[in-house]
Amino acid sequence: MVKQERAARTRRSLIQAAAEVFAEQGFVPASLGAISKRAGVSNGALHFHFANKNMLAEAVETEAAEAVRRLTEAARARQGNSLQSVVDATHDLMRSLLQDAIVRGGFELAGDMQRRTKSPLRSEWRQWVEDSLRAAQRAGVLAEGVSAAEAARVVVAATVGLEVLGGADPSWLSRQNVTRFWEMLLPRIADRRRLGTLVCAGSRPPAAPSESAPGQSQ
Amino acid sequence: MVKQERAARTRRSLIQAAAEVFAEQGFVPASLGAISKRAGVSNGALHFHFANKNMLAEAVETEAAEAVRRLTEAARARQGNSLQSVVDATHDLMRSLLQDAIVRGGFELAGDMQRRTKSPLRSEWRQWVEDSLRAAQRAGVLAEGVSAAEAARVVVAATVGLEVLGGADPSWLSRQNVTRFWEMLLPRIADRRRLGTLVCAGSRPPAAPSESAPGQSQ
Repeated sequence: MVKQERAARTRRSLIQAAAEVFAEQGFVPASLGAISKRAGVSNGALHFHFANKNMLAEAVETEAAEAVRRLTEAARARQGNSLQSVVDATHDLMRSLLQDAIVRGGFELAGDMQRRTKSPLRSEWRQWVEDSLRAAQRAGVLAEGVSAAEAARVVVAATVGLEVLGGADPSWLSRQNVTRFWEMLLPRIADRRRLGTLVCAGSRPPAAPSESAPGQSQ
Repeated sequence: MVKQERAARTRRSLIQAAAEVFAEQGFVPASLGAISKRAGVSNGALHFHFANKNMLAEAVETEAAEAVRRLTEAARARQGNSLQSVVDATHDLMRSLLQDAIVRGGFELAGDMQRRTKSPLRSEWRQWVEDSLRAAQRAGVLAEGVSAAEAARVVVAATVGLEVLGGADPSWLSRQNVTRFWEMLLPRIADRRRLGTLVCAGSRPPAAPSESAPGQSQ
């Protein structure tokens, strides 16, 4: 049992280290040596858990996708199907990109030429935004004449842009920046009678500094 | 003279081939052999023009930046400093990303971990959008209370998102998709009295198929 726990911990630290190295260097230049060194484990231990770099990348992508699924499901559970859940999820996603190395690494891989067709991250995010805005439309939360699919394309394009720009300059991922985006878009896509109830800054108060450790960001 | 022309043509086809290979494979995996083969020249001829892969990448980035500068300057020359020049330039940029291998290759390099800090493309585009929207604000074309800097961040995030998503799925770069983006944003950021004069689909008629060859996209 102790042995199993140790193995799980080693696996976890390898995925974390791989996410960091992929995010800093890209998939192709990242070496297994750099990853095992960062994780503080031997090359042998790395190969016990992961046969090759592709399997490490898949593990990062899978864990990042799970983290994104957790945050979108939590946003929906808090807010039903309203437009507010999309606003909240974009805030939570950007905060995860800032604070969670695995989410950042997963999205860097999703943008990498060598991995982009294999990664589920951007397509799942797009699907969730589309589904949520269609539900918001059925609930009468979108303004008349606004297409849920077209609004989803704008939200997805902008969030992918923030994600990519945030890789080089984290200020793009700030709560303030995401709030400004929604202040531009929401008056256009929300039903006028609902607009007053929607919070561009997200419906949850900003996390206090002590709460913003990586583990809290999901 | 004939010799100089031949050298210029060889250089040109090497830059074109490099842009294509960088866009397909990414900077690190791209080999000089694949580039010279694509260009139909010998390895010796490649090394006569470019000492290494970095110099080829710089040439692609420089030519892509010049192409983007040409299209933004042309949009401004046609439209003065109005918001319409930003609308037009986003259409022209997305068309270039679809049709011009050097512009596509340049932006793929701008998104590549190994090149992103060196590339002028995204920062120059951002600067141009910001300058143009500030000018539009001074000319009274922006709605009251809208910050030119904040509107610029939304436009830049969305266009970077379209550029990145368009690398895997060209439909993101379509005229229709860019038009829908402006139909969402323009009613929010434009002064109400000017809105009727602004054309979300771009102020130039769509190019006829015969005009849409790569050479015409700039």
